[in-house]
Amino acid sequence: MFKFSTGNSLSSKNFFQFSVVQASLRFHKEGAVSYTKVPRNVNMEKLQSGYLFPEISMREVQHIEKYPEADLISLGIGDTTEPVPDIIASSMANYAYSLSTAEGYRGYGAEQGNKALRKAIAETIYKDVQVKATEVFVSDGAQCDIARLQMLLGSNVTIAVQDPSFPAFVDTSVIIGQAGDFEDKSRMYKNIEYMKCLPQNNFFPDLATVSRTDIIFFCSPNNPTGHAATWQQLEQLVKFAKENGSIIVFDSSYAPYIRDDSPRSIFEIPGAREVAIEISSFSKFAGFTGIRLGWTIVPEELSFSNGFPVIKDFDRIVCTCFNGASNIAQAGGLACLSSKGLTAVRSLVDGYMENAKLLLDTFDFLGLKSYGGKNAPYVWVHFPGSNSWDVFNEILEKTHVITVPGSGFGPGGEEFIRISAFGRRKSIIEASRRLKKNF
Amino acid sequence: MFKFSTGNSLSSKNFFQFSVVQASLRFHKEGAVSYTKVPRNVNMEKLQSGYLFPEISMREVQHIEKYPEADLISLGIGDTTEPVPDIIASSMANYAYSLSTAEGYRGYGAEQGNKALRKAIAETIYKDVQVKATEVFVSDGAQCDIARLQMLLGSNVTIAVQDPSFPAFVDTSVIIGQAGDFEDKSRMYKNIEYMKCLPQNNFFPDLATVSRTDIIFFCSPNNPTGHAATWQQLEQLVKFAKENGSIIVFDSSYAPYIRDDSPRSIFEIPGAREVAIEISSFSKFAGFTGIRLGWTIVPEELSFSNGFPVIKDFDRIVCTCFNGASNIAQAGGLACLSSKGLTAVRSLVDGYMENAKLLLDTFDFLGLKSYGGKNAPYVWVHFPGSNSWDVFNEILEKTHVITVPGSGFGPGGEEFIRISAFGRRKSIIEASRRLKKNF
Repeated sequence: MFKFSTGNSLSSKNFFQFSVVQASLRFHKEGAVSYTKVPRNVNMEKLQSGYLFPEISMREVQHIEKYPEADLISLGIGDTTEPVPDIIASSMANYAYSLSTAEGYRGYGAEQGNKALRKAIAETIYKDVQVKATEVFVSDGAQCDIARLQMLLGSNVTIAVQDPSFPAFVDTSVIIGQAGDFEDKSRMYKNIEYMKCLPQNNFFPDLATVSRTDIIFFCSPNNPTGHAATWQQLEQLVKFAKENGSIIVFDSSYAPYIRDDSPRSIFEIPGAREVAIEISSFSKFAGFTGIRLGWTIVPEELSFSNGFPVIKDFDRIVCTCFNGASNIAQAGGLACLSSKGLTAVRSLVDGYMENAKLLLDTFDFLGLKSYGGKNAPYVWVHFPGSNSWDVFNEILEKTHVITVPGSGFGPGGEEFIRISAFGRRKSIIEASRRLKKNF
Repeated sequence: MFKFSTGNSLSSKNFFQFSVVQASLRFHKEGAVSYTKVPRNVNMEKLQSGYLFPEISMREVQHIEKYPEADLISLGIGDTTEPVPDIIASSMANYAYSLSTAEGYRGYGAEQGNKALRKAIAETIYKDVQVKATEVFVSDGAQCDIARLQMLLGSNVTIAVQDPSFPAFVDTSVIIGQAGDFEDKSRMYKNIEYMKCLPQNNFFPDLATVSRTDIIFFCSPNNPTGHAATWQQLEQLVKFAKENGSIIVFDSSYAPYIRDDSPRSIFEIPGAREVAIEISSFSKFAGFTGIRLGWTIVPEELSFSNGFPVIKDFDRIVCTCFNGASNIAQAGGLACLSSKGLTAVRSLVDGYMENAKLLLDTFDFLGLKSYGGKNAPYVWVHFPGSNSWDVFNEILEKTHVITVPGSGFGPGGEEFIRISAFGRRKSIIEASRRLKKNF
């Protein structure tokens, strides 16, 4: 059985603060350099640590330095590992090569994305719901559009997040100035509404106790818990947003992993077009993590309190702060949505879901309660009473397997770790073997 | 000779305001849609018009609808037209195809860019100045990094821009909340320092009359005027920034077009590492407008007033609000910087500069004073006493050639139009013929 230490750990927070001081000392210890008179952005000062995933990568590098002989298995950052299907890679290769010909060369595409791809997203991904091609904005990934949405919204809106949640929601909120001060005791930002999503509430908040905010970030299937919100839960959420005049920013990046009949888009819920934006991605859907392609849906009906359409401001942001996703990536996205492409990427997703099953079985064998993994490529494992960074470190030391400590996703993630099903089958089997053997 | 009308023109501002009202009416006239209670960002409300370049594209579309038979020549948006050299396109095609193999597949790259490319940029583009690979941040284009820099800086800094200047500097400043109110009479934002760069001051401001700001956006060779700042001018600028404790954000996207010995990087000026960031791009350098690749240099020495290194905050922004440029585009960037790649892209640039010469000769023939075109792919033509939108319209009506009205780049651009040398030779010759014939 798995045992975890409880004392003397280097908590993530102290660890990161140390790095910052070190950085300042390293650059300026000689005193020869003059400072400018430009004030550091107070919002940047409020960020509590480095962004989670680069920090996990850094831990990985440190571990390899410490154990150069170890066969490290990385199930931390949710990074795809399976080759892109031939039909999709070939489309990108052909497009890229055609740029060397007079007939094939293209310069800037439309900032909002190429027409054919916008149309294919509307007609393929949203074939059962009413989404127009002109409501689809092609992006270079969901995370980038979260930041652009925050620029659009500005500092004078209030936000709610699931706790735990994908850290870009909170961190971009801090950067843009919505979050207020960080409170050490609760490990929460004062002005952010944290909606606890835990096993005991079936990963859905009791909305009667949630304060009204302007924006509600909601991710389903959830990163990190792997929970896919039910029809009833999303109907409640839309009703809550309508009553409060809030906007839901719905992250559906993991929708292709849903195996049951849970909603794949917020727009499957009646009335959502008046209260929701949807952010999504080709990253996990088709192995595009390094190719960079995603999209955001802003319905025409969605309006600010003064009646101004949100889509007009989003269009302005996309034109001013972005210049479109790479045309090569867009050619790949179009190939994904062809019938052959869809068949091929579904088989990729199926493979990762078989990995998830292996991981669920492993923790079951270990007598640990785990969640997710049935509609999402993440397994969320409970270590009651633990500090999740301690668990992360102990798993790493004993098995050379990288996971992600749950508290990296917010205070509600304490006592949990997230383990990713993105990995080659051989690695997943080996990680499972080591976990079973060493605990 | 060229004649322009002076009355009854639809000014850009009224035109855009009309569009916004129309949009609101279109979406909401039936009264059936309910508004949210989310306030529209007051900064977004301060934007005066649509972003310049999409608006020019819209004018182009309207003109084609009006004259479907006309052979429209687009020398407006600075969009590259020549095929990407084979060696570069092949590298991207090979990389894209390799993603379909187990050995070639790669997921997420480093957010800051792939090591080999960062090293190649440092050692090739900056071979004569001291720039470390770790100070190079690979981006998906200069415009995107301008927006990310604004997120980093926040609303509590003051900025200066060249007038005229690339509109993303002002517009992102408005969006982030630095700009203050727009003043109709001066057509300037109250809190922005506009540094007039006109023929009479050799396109460089009299710094004795420029107020101190935290940030100074400076683009050389300049978009739109085509002026490459001289050694003396940039030395003055760095001295001015040092004295004031300001940070220069230097846009060197057009540096490969410099034909004389003007500085190609702000870091060629002694002392610049303590006061400058440089933003640059593969777009115009190698025809990557639709491929999306650029970079930003943040020197380690550059510090905020409290001593905190700017590079640390930029790294945090890149990790949180961006996820790296497409790996396929990065493979192309690396090929550009090989010795064969450099030779090939230099020949592209030479071709565009021959176009620029043809345009300069055309306006000379017409007796119009023009600037730029010698170290930059833009020609800046003076129409004394005119309204630049009127000139834009008149050229379009008489010759079916799209240009850009100078006032789109700021009030200092009034009386000018910018014409781009990015075009196929045949089109440039035909545009020249029409201009010579019709005026």
